[in-house]
Amino acid sequence: MAANNKFLPEKKSVAIVGCPFSGGQPKAGVDQGPIHLVQAGLIDQIEGLGYEVTFDGHHQFEDVSALADPPIGILKNPRLVSKVSKAVSEVVKQHASNGKIPVTIGGDHSLAMGTISGTLSQYPEAVVVWIDAHADLNTIETTTTGNIHGMPVAFLLGLSTLPEYSWLPSSPPLLTPSKIVYIGLRDVDAGEKALLREHGIRAFSMHEVDRYGIGKVVDMALDTVNPARDKPVHLSFDVDALDPSVAPSTGTPVRGGLTFREGHYICEAIHETGCLVALDIMEVNPSLADAASVAQTVAVGCSLVRSALGETLL
Amino acid sequence: MAANNKFLPEKKSVAIVGCPFSGGQPKAGVDQGPIHLVQAGLIDQIEGLGYEVTFDGHHQFEDVSALADPPIGILKNPRLVSKVSKAVSEVVKQHASNGKIPVTIGGDHSLAMGTISGTLSQYPEAVVVWIDAHADLNTIETTTTGNIHGMPVAFLLGLSTLPEYSWLPSSPPLLTPSKIVYIGLRDVDAGEKALLREHGIRAFSMHEVDRYGIGKVVDMALDTVNPARDKPVHLSFDVDALDPSVAPSTGTPVRGGLTFREGHYICEAIHETGCLVALDIMEVNPSLADAASVAQTVAVGCSLVRSALGETLL
Amino acid sequence: MAANNKFLPEKKSVAIVGCPFSGGQPKAGVDQGPIHLVQAGLIDQIEGLGYEVTFDGHHQFEDVSALADPPIGILKNPRLVSKVSKAVSEVVKQHASNGKIPVTIGGDHSLAMGTISGTLSQYPEAVVVWIDAHADLNTIETTTTGNIHGMPVAFLLGLSTLPEYSWLPSSPPLLTPSKIVYIGLRDVDAGEKALLREHGIRAFSMHEVDRYGIGKVVDMALDTVNPARDKPVHLSFDVDALDPSVAPSTGTPVRGGLTFREGHYICEAIHETGCLVALDIMEVNPSLADAASVAQTVAVGCSLVRSALGETLL
Ligand SMILES: [Mn+2]
Ligand SMILES: [Mn+2]
Ligand SMILES: [Mn+2]
Ligand SMILES: [Mn+2]
Ligand SMILES: [Mn+2]
Ligand SMILES: [Mn+2]
Repeated sequence: MAANNKFLPEKKSVAIVGCPFSGGQPKAGVDQGPIHLVQAGLIDQIEGLGYEVTFDGHHQFEDVSALADPPIGILKNPRLVSKVSKAVSEVVKQHASNGKIPVTIGGDHSLAMGTISGTLSQYPEAVVVWIDAHADLNTIETTTTGNIHGMPVAFLLGLSTLPEYSWLPSSPPLLTPSKIVYIGLRDVDAGEKALLREHGIRAFSMHEVDRYGIGKVVDMALDTVNPARDKPVHLSFDVDALDPSVAPSTGTPVRGGLTFREGHYICEAIHETGCLVALDIMEVNPSLADAASVAQTVAVGCSLVRSALGETLL
Repeated sequence: MAANNKFLPEKKSVAIVGCPFSGGQPKAGVDQGPIHLVQAGLIDQIEGLGYEVTFDGHHQFEDVSALADPPIGILKNPRLVSKVSKAVSEVVKQHASNGKIPVTIGGDHSLAMGTISGTLSQYPEAVVVWIDAHADLNTIETTTTGNIHGMPVAFLLGLSTLPEYSWLPSSPPLLTPSKIVYIGLRDVDAGEKALLREHGIRAFSMHEVDRYGIGKVVDMALDTVNPARDKPVHLSFDVDALDPSVAPSTGTPVRGGLTFREGHYICEAIHETGCLVALDIMEVNPSLADAASVAQTVAVGCSLVRSALGETLL
Repeated sequence: MAANNKFLPEKKSVAIVGCPFSGGQPKAGVDQGPIHLVQAGLIDQIEGLGYEVTFDGHHQFEDVSALADPPIGILKNPRLVSKVSKAVSEVVKQHASNGKIPVTIGGDHSLAMGTISGTLSQYPEAVVVWIDAHADLNTIETTTTGNIHGMPVAFLLGLSTLPEYSWLPSSPPLLTPSKIVYIGLRDVDAGEKALLREHGIRAFSMHEVDRYGIGKVVDMALDTVNPARDKPVHLSFDVDALDPSVAPSTGTPVRGGLTFREGHYICEAIHETGCLVALDIMEVNPSLADAASVAQTVAVGCSLVRSALGETLL
């Protein structure tokens, strides 16, 4: 069912990178997200689209004791997040170098430091489409919470560096401002707004989704980072981009989000480019709602993956 | 209130065809749909739009005993469905030939074999706009359930024939692929997708509704089957085209459907063409939800009828 | 955060006009709307956008005893509504003449006789953007309820006059048909439809929102009343324009309304014109729903104000 891909072998292959990790934010439970997604049948569903699927179990991240990981400034769990991201980066790069599509299921969005650096190691020309209510662009200077899941883009762009993150190149960084575009933003901190402007990072908030419709917004977003549709695309999808009525079970829901259909449309449209080389589905937290809402959120996580991998309505 | 119609007498007249029938699918209750619609005041509402309304009570379909109606292949109730459709076809044709708009209220969507063949008998040039989550295009070869409400379009197109359906012309069939267009599809079987492609049948799934907006999709749909807006239109509306949050009380709900407004917009826009000659509202099943959801679904069924018959917001 | 305004001093200043008034309609509780909005932190929120905010407490309207205010025809509380509107008109004009943006929080929509006449006294060239499920255009001749909150536009246009409303100019009236535009209409009485047509008043119903999308509809609406974006704009927002799922706690909810995002988009887009000189948020009634729905409706009221005053997503 999947369309031809411009960067991958004809034989379609997906590697599931299960990341039960919650250290980039304070709420317990988001580490259970990937377990629920797999239990809901994600692997069978991807195989049903004609992919060969590799999954060797969820990652067992080496722990870092709280004692050995005091805050740096106000950053919480800085060494743990670094260690986990580094491990994820290596495995994503490994899968990518084998011609597979890494589908990383989180877990909190700090993991994207790992996934995106892994993708960029293999495909230096790759661009990032980041779907989120938040910009996740806070720097060490601008963060007020110290939760690193609000900072991965700053680290990837080299706007924040720490000796503990020396594995992540910062000068030059792997990611540059012209290679990332946001869709779905609606809860952006003042410091982040300034950074977006200062660095000329293109972002389509819900205001633009209202003004132009999701069809045109996706076209415009791709035109900014991938005008000829000839560069690999890493799609990093935070489920809180969706409206809370669609994906209630997530740590930082924000009203006025993408509808069920808009979220899936984005994934379908990215698939249609034939450029998708890596996918993240992040911030499903099965501890934050009633059973029906959890099941709904998990089901949406699975169907977003399927849409990005080629499931079509017709 | 109703606009001028290109094919009907100046004096506007509607004939309600109440079809308490559930034999095309397995869930009890859809036969109660038309009874609830009438009890909710549908007839008064249509009269309020300036129509003369004929309604002689719901059809009393002659039963066919289960013993006399064994499956043909896996098709369930094949003789009963045929007999009921044939009766509906005749009454729809009769009303149409009297210059009335037949408004058929179901009941399951297998009834559309009857309604559409009746319309095409009177108006051979008529085209069909089919609003549904499903394509209802399975053939005897592709159906996996044997529920005939998933097959009426295949019978109408002559893709499936049976001696028991000899009343329905199949070579040539009354309906041809260029005379039907779908809006709202999002749960289409693999076999149906192949048939849509093979026969070049135009379909606008929810993906296109997202991409273009409902305004443009309705224009595009009409442009494919009725570019000069000079052919009679039969509108067959399965309420499961609507999102389950809008029309919960139906047998085969599917997420990601038309909003309340999109559903009514379609009806309003079809009315504006001045081409509507027949209308079906199908698959309201008052047994499948709580009382509030049933009332909501019945109210939506009524308001879709009113919109198609000329009720406007301004 | 607020953009530059074409008609106001550089130093941005808002005056809250709190109107705990329910005399224009029959349901108790809408008089509590402004109290809830202020308690929810509206003033701090506006200050957070960089405005100086004046608020001297909610208006204590002089009462008119029921005995002294018998119906005129079927109009209920006609003298009371007149007296309150006149007081509001004077205070709005006063604030406007001091270079402040009057933000009137109701209370029922009859108050708009006061707010809009106040604005037009100060800015004779001002135009009105009226966001509502209803046209509020009934005249003394067409009203069937006698509730004056369904009539303020008729009084403002001089289509209805009474000796008791002699303070409101009617020949010529302050407001003329070419200076008002509606968005969101979906429950308009037959008499109002006739008046809209007769006077050539431009209105964008939900049908147009569906057809064109809210982005284009706001552009089109502004093009009709303010093509060069060089006239002051009075935005009068009845929260029942929003879908009842978004703003449930209001007196006359109507299905098929504006989404959360569409409502806010309108406010954002009006702000972007740099022409906003006065704002009404009307018909929040905290007595008509459960606590969660009330909190939701009040929160939406506050966020609409913020959007109109310059809060942006990016
Ligand atoms: Mn987020
Ligand atoms: Mn995120
Ligand atoms: Mn269906
Ligand atoms: Mn159907
Ligand atoms: Mn209203
Ligand atoms: Mn109003």
